[in-house]
Amino acid sequence: MASADYIAKSERPLGLPDDAFEQRRPVRGQITKWEARAVSLYALGLRPDSIVWDIGAGTGSVAVEAARIAHRGKIYAIDKDVDSADLLRRNVERYGAGRVRVSIGTAPETLADLPDPDAVFIGGGGAAMPDIIATVINRLRPSGRLVANFAAMERANATYRALQAAAMSPGLTMVSASRGRELPDGALRLAAMNPVFVVWGQR
Amino acid sequence: MASADYIAKSERPLGLPDDAFEQRRPVRGQITKWEARAVSLYALGLRPDSIVWDIGAGTGSVAVEAARIAHRGKIYAIDKDVDSADLLRRNVERYGAGRVRVSIGTAPETLADLPDPDAVFIGGGGAAMPDIIATVINRLRPSGRLVANFAAMERANATYRALQAAAMSPGLTMVSASRGRELPDGALRLAAMNPVFVVWGQR
Amino acid sequence: MASADYIAKSERPLGLPDDAFEQRRPVRGQITKWEARAVSLYALGLRPDSIVWDIGAGTGSVAVEAARIAHRGKIYAIDKDVDSADLLRRNVERYGAGRVRVSIGTAPETLADLPDPDAVFIGGGGAAMPDIIATVINRLRPSGRLVANFAAMERANATYRALQAAAMSPGLTMVSASRGRELPDGALRLAAMNPVFVVWGQR
Amino acid sequence: MASADYIAKSERPLGLPDDAFEQRRPVRGQITKWEARAVSLYALGLRPDSIVWDIGAGTGSVAVEAARIAHRGKIYAIDKDVDSADLLRRNVERYGAGRVRVSIGTAPETLADLPDPDAVFIGGGGAAMPDIIATVINRLRPSGRLVANFAAMERANATYRALQAAAMSPGLTMVSASRGRELPDGALRLAAMNPVFVVWGQR
Repeated sequence: MASADYIAKSERPLGLPDDAFEQRRPVRGQITKWEARAVSLYALGLRPDSIVWDIGAGTGSVAVEAARIAHRGKIYAIDKDVDSADLLRRNVERYGAGRVRVSIGTAPETLADLPDPDAVFIGGGGAAMPDIIATVINRLRPSGRLVANFAAMERANATYRALQAAAMSPGLTMVSASRGRELPDGALRLAAMNPVFVVWGQR
Repeated sequence: MASADYIAKSERPLGLPDDAFEQRRPVRGQITKWEARAVSLYALGLRPDSIVWDIGAGTGSVAVEAARIAHRGKIYAIDKDVDSADLLRRNVERYGAGRVRVSIGTAPETLADLPDPDAVFIGGGGAAMPDIIATVINRLRPSGRLVANFAAMERANATYRALQAAAMSPGLTMVSASRGRELPDGALRLAAMNPVFVVWGQR
Repeated sequence: MASADYIAKSERPLGLPDDAFEQRRPVRGQITKWEARAVSLYALGLRPDSIVWDIGAGTGSVAVEAARIAHRGKIYAIDKDVDSADLLRRNVERYGAGRVRVSIGTAPETLADLPDPDAVFIGGGGAAMPDIIATVINRLRPSGRLVANFAAMERANATYRALQAAAMSPGLTMVSASRGRELPDGALRLAAMNPVFVVWGQR
Repeated sequence: MASADYIAKSERPLGLPDDAFEQRRPVRGQITKWEARAVSLYALGLRPDSIVWDIGAGTGSVAVEAARIAHRGKIYAIDKDVDSADLLRRNVERYGAGRVRVSIGTAPETLADLPDPDAVFIGGGGAAMPDIIATVINRLRPSGRLVANFAAMERANATYRALQAAAMSPGLTMVSASRGRELPDGALRLAAMNPVFVVWGQR
């Protein structure tokens, strides 16, 4: 897709390429792939004035796109990884249009200080996931939406069931993208990205 | 996802469910699936003030989402199907935020009357495709993007090659979505949507 | 693929097309798709003299292929559906090379009368699945293999965990096939089959 | 799946794991994945006495499985890579049950010395593909089948069209497998293999 520099200048509200984001060295490649990011942003149902939480923000790729769609809104990027805080802040400053605030700390504790959200994105997660989901369900504003991405089947299922138990009309779609790559002779093969389970619910 | 009524009122700029759109009876089910729509809108790289062509607009599902992201822009929905013109106009009036103009006629002829675009979406297509692609490449404004969706492998390939020949840095991703559906006992199975080839290029 | 008549005569040991099998009317389409059948037969690791159980045999598609690979073996096709017993018997007589015995009854009860197996295929299943898995694990001969197909994510996971708890070195692969179909103008589109979870373990 | 040693001893006719085969160092990972191998072997429609050509045999993974299914047949493994000839011979000796003959040389020239086949597998290929396909179509015995695997979309399409032009009732299925892998905490994620286009035809 387009170069990062071009995009930073042009203020496109949607469509940042994966390589626009500065990434943590040891986990390079773990950024949410853009196809799954597109589907997740879509499922978030953002409005121009939405208040958004991005929990487990990582490089900030979802937070900055959300900031461009919710162009009168406010975005909170939360991550527990102190070592990556500077990188997250740099990405957010470069692309976030001044609407993203970074909070470093563990969820759900860190969420206590934030205003109630209209839309929450969760980029994956470990042992604290049930507590985080419970907190989000409790804090979401009316008609607010939660969207979560999972590599792990069981966590996708467990989140679907938690949203079902909370009467949040859950949905799930598994997104598999395979990207065209040119072979040495120019022929086009397909390089598969790992499937991502996108799970959502609405209050 | 959320009900159509709710969404029409809330002016979400991204995230309309497939059933929000009134559909032609004989081809119900042929609307671009929302996962492919999300990926395509993302690849379009819309800006707040983009001028957008949606060629083969069908129900207008891409045009109206584009109108919400390009909230100071202008969207042109082009379709050759006279019988569906009323339906397209109704969907556009309901969700298009007053920024979508409908043109009924065949491409590329109909395109002659429209202003040069920043972003062009093509929802598929038949025999006229090479002419349409050539016209779009010629008319795109600097840094403008073309995104096309294909069910047919050969047409996806041919479009990739046409963009390559025009030095438009083509890309291709095949999007396969499988949606969670509850079995009678509540267990979740995956219902596969047909793969969609999303092809893009940039001037 | 080839016509059913041709295949019945030729005694190919592997490669029956889906339409070779007479199917139950109300559930037509629920036969294991041939791509998943191929992967499952492969994972079964049949030997020429294998004793095989096909639990939930349905139309008998897996049983008859197994009978052709295990050409000195013995195959047991078990199904609880009394109404479909005649159909299962007809398919088995037509293609099973005289090596398939049909048992109508519920599992795990019906399994008590059968000799211990080298390979067991389970074509899906409901509430009795944990009991069936436990019985199979207990009865499998040394180095014997169990292969199960699931549409439901949670049942695939639960079976993987049961095999893990029994130290049976479980494996799982999700098979997604998309078949070429010619559009009216001859172009080739891809029609997606639903993903099938193939789970296996070995004693 | 099971260990290579176990399988070599047991003479399973179907179901060798990918790591059973000694692989060329620089191209490790390029062996046909077992899911695509299973689907391709299935589509070959082997009989007990089939004469089989495996063109571009590589590590010999398809040839040796074919030798176990066609247990009274004869298999010819053809590869142009002189440097890998020893490796191919070792794999064939270990697993091929004495029914596989190795021919090192380029196709279609090398094929002139072989008896007419009942089944032909082509594991991919480059510039010579149209000539190879033409030769195979010409040499196949009545009701014989050709099955080819492709990573490249255009080559899959071109082969489908060549089989169509020869009235060989072509078929195509794109096989995507995603394998369960345990995350550090034991949860199961899906690792995607690249899609493989399996194309076949029958005389």
